[in-house]
Amino acid sequence: MLINGLPGDSISASDRGLAYGDGLYRTLEARHGTPLLWHWQWQRLAADCAQLRLPCPDEALLLREIASVAAELERAVVKIVLTRGGGQRGYAMPDGCSPTRIVSASAWGGYPAERAAQGIVARWCDTRLALQPLLAGVKHLNRLENVFARSEWRDPAIAEGLMLDMAGSVVEGTMSNLFIVRGGELLTPPLDRCGVSGAMRASVLDAAANLAIPARVVRLLPDEVLAADEAFVCNSLAGIWPLRQLHTRHWHDWPLTRHLQLALQGGS
Amino acid sequence: MLINGLPGDSISASDRGLAYGDGLYRTLEARHGTPLLWHWQWQRLAADCAQLRLPCPDEALLLREIASVAAELERAVVKIVLTRGGGQRGYAMPDGCSPTRIVSASAWGGYPAERAAQGIVARWCDTRLALQPLLAGVKHLNRLENVFARSEWRDPAIAEGLMLDMAGSVVEGTMSNLFIVRGGELLTPPLDRCGVSGAMRASVLDAAANLAIPARVVRLLPDEVLAADEAFVCNSLAGIWPLRQLHTRHWHDWPLTRHLQLALQGGS
Repeated sequence: MLINGLPGDSISASDRGLAYGDGLYRTLEARHGTPLLWHWQWQRLAADCAQLRLPCPDEALLLREIASVAAELERAVVKIVLTRGGGQRGYAMPDGCSPTRIVSASAWGGYPAERAAQGIVARWCDTRLALQPLLAGVKHLNRLENVFARSEWRDPAIAEGLMLDMAGSVVEGTMSNLFIVRGGELLTPPLDRCGVSGAMRASVLDAAANLAIPARVVRLLPDEVLAADEAFVCNSLAGIWPLRQLHTRHWHDWPLTRHLQLALQGGS
Repeated sequence: MLINGLPGDSISASDRGLAYGDGLYRTLEARHGTPLLWHWQWQRLAADCAQLRLPCPDEALLLREIASVAAELERAVVKIVLTRGGGQRGYAMPDGCSPTRIVSASAWGGYPAERAAQGIVARWCDTRLALQPLLAGVKHLNRLENVFARSEWRDPAIAEGLMLDMAGSVVEGTMSNLFIVRGGELLTPPLDRCGVSGAMRASVLDAAANLAIPARVVRLLPDEVLAADEAFVCNSLAGIWPLRQLHTRHWHDWPLTRHLQLALQGGS
């Protein structure tokens, strides 16, 4: 682990990342120190920094630090955390912010391969996402809603929970973005009021464009998800997991989802 | 500063308090190591632990740690932070949670006395509080809304900003709770959908009951605050600050507010 470029494993107990969740993060896969989906990760990181008014670190510096922590690992989970650092007591953003940058890696065997191959069982979460356009889309450090949603079930046969917003629209999984297929069209919810805009979501939308698959960002109700021809969740570590079961609905084949899985193989 | 009872000033960079804002805090005043308003602080801390499903620390232990960090200081700001500690990667609350407990103190000269004496200038914030009943009232570590609201102004003549929720009701200040007086009655907004339930708010409601001042928890619209006979904000460090000006409204005397200020003098 590197803290502001130096080996370490702790941060100041006064850091605003701890005090207020005043920061953001990304989780990604690296192979021998090379991050996958970097184009999208970097794009999202830079956008999130802008939305939180955090200074964005230098891209080449981040890549060097990822290589440094993950080089020895064939396959690693890399986590980047950026916070607004220290500063005087109180909520106000400090003048002359000195951000804290944490880059860490751990060896990773990958998720069970059958999730991508045979699909997963998902559930509906009771925990709703609050509507907050100011923070929507950002992978910030205020994640108590996700913690509560993920704590609704312990059954390891359930791989993901889907979350609605307070207005009743389906938004995403606790740790993934959601897509459905309807009449040959790829649909995914907007992330303008809540939710996290993931790098894999961006990559899927890009792949769909390259494959001339029509795709649209549109609000979805639970019944529309249950009635979909196909549905899948995705994130940078999981890739694409087709939904095999959600509530009473079962799916058995996923032709368009398979097409996207194949197109994204290789991952970057 | 004590971290889990031991002198220190840093925490693990993998702590869930940093990763997800998965924890809570209290800020309070201590005199020679004795915390003020402790009855209410402890009540709120215990309630917040229950709402976040965090193990609540032993009260006597906390009091010993506060005394230890603040004993040498005539007047100190004490901060208590409790997090869900470490644990495996991912949002799920870990089995056998080992919380992190941070108790720190710093010397403090108090806020300028004229704020309580002559009242303050407050403003309306554009940043709205999202509606999330699951977390409402808790002083948790997901505080980006407060950070954004407090960053809307830099004019030091403005002491506080008042925040509305997404539904348009007035909830609180960025770092304080709000009361108004209307027709001899004390009114304060409910904190059932958002906001922080402060120890001083509880203490004010208790004082009002003791003084036989009628008090009610009721949703308030901005126009009702502007039309109030008196208005004040309060927190554990500030005590009670009457509002002298809000937007176009000016107040010049605060008979019931003064009554409460006097009743609460002594502070515990």
